[in-house]
Amino acid sequence: MTAPLDLGVHALLGAYRDGTLTVRQTIEEVLKRIAQAGDDKVWISRAPDADLLAQADALDARRGEIGRLPLFGVPFAAKDNLDVAGMVTTAACPGFAYEAKTSAEVVQRLVDAGAIVIGKTNLDQFATGLVGVRSPYGVPRNPFDASYVPGGSSSGSAVAVSSGLVSFSLGTDTAGSGRVPAGFNNIVGLKPTPGLLSNEGMVPACRSLDCTSVFALSCADADAVLAVAAEPHTTPAIGKSFRFGILGTKDAEFFGDAAYATLYAQSIERLKALGGTPVEIDYAPFRDAAQLLYSGPWVAERTAAVGAFMESADDKSGVWPTTQQIVLGGRKYSAVDAFEGQYRLAELKARAFAEMKGLDFLAVPTAGTIYKLSDLEREPVLYNSHLGHYTNFVNFFGLSALAVPAGFRPDGMPFGITLIANANAERALLAFGARWQRAVPLPLGKTTSQLPPPERDPVVVEDRVPVAVVG
Amino acid sequence: MTAPLDLGVHALLGAYRDGTLTVRQTIEEVLKRIAQAGDDKVWISRAPDADLLAQADALDARRGEIGRLPLFGVPFAAKDNLDVAGMVTTAACPGFAYEAKTSAEVVQRLVDAGAIVIGKTNLDQFATGLVGVRSPYGVPRNPFDASYVPGGSSSGSAVAVSSGLVSFSLGTDTAGSGRVPAGFNNIVGLKPTPGLLSNEGMVPACRSLDCTSVFALSCADADAVLAVAAEPHTTPAIGKSFRFGILGTKDAEFFGDAAYATLYAQSIERLKALGGTPVEIDYAPFRDAAQLLYSGPWVAERTAAVGAFMESADDKSGVWPTTQQIVLGGRKYSAVDAFEGQYRLAELKARAFAEMKGLDFLAVPTAGTIYKLSDLEREPVLYNSHLGHYTNFVNFFGLSALAVPAGFRPDGMPFGITLIANANAERALLAFGARWQRAVPLPLGKTTSQLPPPERDPVVVEDRVPVAVVG
Repeated sequence: MTAPLDLGVHALLGAYRDGTLTVRQTIEEVLKRIAQAGDDKVWISRAPDADLLAQADALDARRGEIGRLPLFGVPFAAKDNLDVAGMVTTAACPGFAYEAKTSAEVVQRLVDAGAIVIGKTNLDQFATGLVGVRSPYGVPRNPFDASYVPGGSSSGSAVAVSSGLVSFSLGTDTAGSGRVPAGFNNIVGLKPTPGLLSNEGMVPACRSLDCTSVFALSCADADAVLAVAAEPHTTPAIGKSFRFGILGTKDAEFFGDAAYATLYAQSIERLKALGGTPVEIDYAPFRDAAQLLYSGPWVAERTAAVGAFMESADDKSGVWPTTQQIVLGGRKYSAVDAFEGQYRLAELKARAFAEMKGLDFLAVPTAGTIYKLSDLEREPVLYNSHLGHYTNFVNFFGLSALAVPAGFRPDGMPFGITLIANANAERALLAFGARWQRAVPLPLGKTTSQLPPPERDPVVVEDRVPVAVVG
Repeated sequence: MTAPLDLGVHALLGAYRDGTLTVRQTIEEVLKRIAQAGDDKVWISRAPDADLLAQADALDARRGEIGRLPLFGVPFAAKDNLDVAGMVTTAACPGFAYEAKTSAEVVQRLVDAGAIVIGKTNLDQFATGLVGVRSPYGVPRNPFDASYVPGGSSSGSAVAVSSGLVSFSLGTDTAGSGRVPAGFNNIVGLKPTPGLLSNEGMVPACRSLDCTSVFALSCADADAVLAVAAEPHTTPAIGKSFRFGILGTKDAEFFGDAAYATLYAQSIERLKALGGTPVEIDYAPFRDAAQLLYSGPWVAERTAAVGAFMESADDKSGVWPTTQQIVLGGRKYSAVDAFEGQYRLAELKARAFAEMKGLDFLAVPTAGTIYKLSDLEREPVLYNSHLGHYTNFVNFFGLSALAVPAGFRPDGMPFGITLIANANAERALLAFGARWQRAVPLPLGKTTSQLPPPERDPVVVEDRVPVAVVG
């Protein structure tokens, strides 16, 4: 092959089916790229090379079964708060480390479908953060500019996909950890409806809000992973003509980033060109719910998850100071605060759902701006909370969301938008996202990969169902 | 009329339709009975007689509209934690009293359908208790024996129906307050699925668990009220052949009451005679969830509701000492406790639902025993908690429940069973309950009322749908 190997899920599967590629060749290429990437701080641990090559050979020997192994020979990475049998889970805290005896349910489903776990990826410790800098294992290198944050908490998983080290990766998303790093790495981040993917085998962050999430280069690839990770399901499609919610001038917040503001405005125009009618929403209930997450009693869920560990941890355990401060901050809330927070949330949810009524989705910036590592050193907490402005409310409200690439700033840093829809709408979002990726051609991550052929796109139900076209 | 007026909902409606009765006659009879009952401690406040007679006359003048007023001229009582416009709401605490400007949504729906609010009924203060003795307004008189508790917290509403003072009444049910007093008064207590009836205009007890409930003499009457109080809905019927969960020997707890144990065993035999196959369940997850309510962080919901009031209340406010102790006890729980309680509950719910799988309903004693007032003076907290043994878990799990009369002890005190089914099964339970009431003929409450004619029973869907009969 003269062109570099395209690690996209569908590209790989196509080459395997055509007989032009072996799994061993893929794994050798992955190992070469990882070696070339050097000290990129993506990995906390890796499966031994010899094991990976043995797995590849074993799969190559099962070529005849390719038809019933939908992720045959597809290399992926798992965030290191998800268990992989025989590997150590750290949640980015060395003192917390344990060897997992069984794999997280979602990991196991993928492996059973023929996918290969390359390694466990770096994250904001205990999945607390949206920046990707809160880890004793270093800051995963943003492939667009290493002076910028990679986004978190699923930092390593996003960089691994964007840098072309793996075909896809698993993240987790409590407050935006599966979306913000997708936006900052020019890739697709699917955060399914809470509960759709199993959380069995995940180190909890906020147990009532945690979701397993998927990073991929294309919506078609993410859909192929979802089809294995979750029970089969369909969702009502988004039609050729659709309505989408947008932020009005008073609600749009870019924290001074004029380029991101312009890119958001362009994205709205592009959605209109795709058949959409924008509807300005009142963002207040969404914003207020987002603020509840970091300034309200839900912090106590983080305390419930790892507070006792942190209180007994010694200096050698590698507890990250900002994370410790946040996690133990949950001790100050009472049960009365917790229930009153839940009442408040229910009110906000009712108002938010009224705003979303009749809309196919909301289109918001994935993040209002991106920060440099040096900015975070100055403002480790405030700037982190800015990154959650458009993400925090989504799991509170039980919604599905899809982060997609949407252009670049003049300085080359990527911008993304997130499409947010009702519960159980992820397949509709992926189908629409595939349309978006074809209509708005952009590089995939920081790779030379190409979009899969259109016939591999997620089922676009509206192509087969008559839809009333408005206007 | 020589026979006493039958105040049952369907009896009244039939007489109005036949033209043999006016609403004025009904109200005059109600006022006479209330006067005869004397100092029964049922009422905290009453609509003025003159107002009631004026309402009666106004309805009689609208006789032509009887067809579109499904509760035309039906007198009812509302528990005094539900707002009735123009009347004072006390929640059985004089210092908490306020005049309601609008009626609770459920009250308003009933009034709009032609029903008449006779008054506001006594309760365990702030709906905290299952005994009916925790009120500065006295203990509503159990019509079977005044030395026994009436059950609570909806004590006055249950006694009002059982004593034939009104046709039906509204209660509320957080932990069993709409079922225990039904059992102790030989009447029907319907606790719908949480959220089916509006809680708008209710003084909260535990906001995440509170339900508006209905007391009536028959399932047919309760169904007629439900049809007005809730949006129309249907539920899959319980067939001629059905499976019901029962307590095994190790789980059956009657607190030493051998007569109640015998009556429970008889009820199982009667359910078998109706076509049921009993299935012994493991009661542990239900019992453990029940214990969470009184010994766990949900007490903080009571603190959230009225804790601040109680802390600022003075000696004259009439705060009940036991209630105050319980409500302020919620301050000791942390937000971590609250979230951990919710995780624990989710585990118990999953186990309980596995036990309920394939069953049409559980049949449990409404209460394991009944206590005398003198018992409660000795053990105000422990004996109260005994009464919640079979009721506390139901709203935690989001289920529907129907308490029905099931016989009498040799000393004449009533025994009841409660049928507990999945969410949104209340109409199926009512239809089955109507079959039960015909098959197990018992007096209705402490009245001379008769069951409505069978054609007035809740729609028995299984009569119209082919059902596979097992065995």
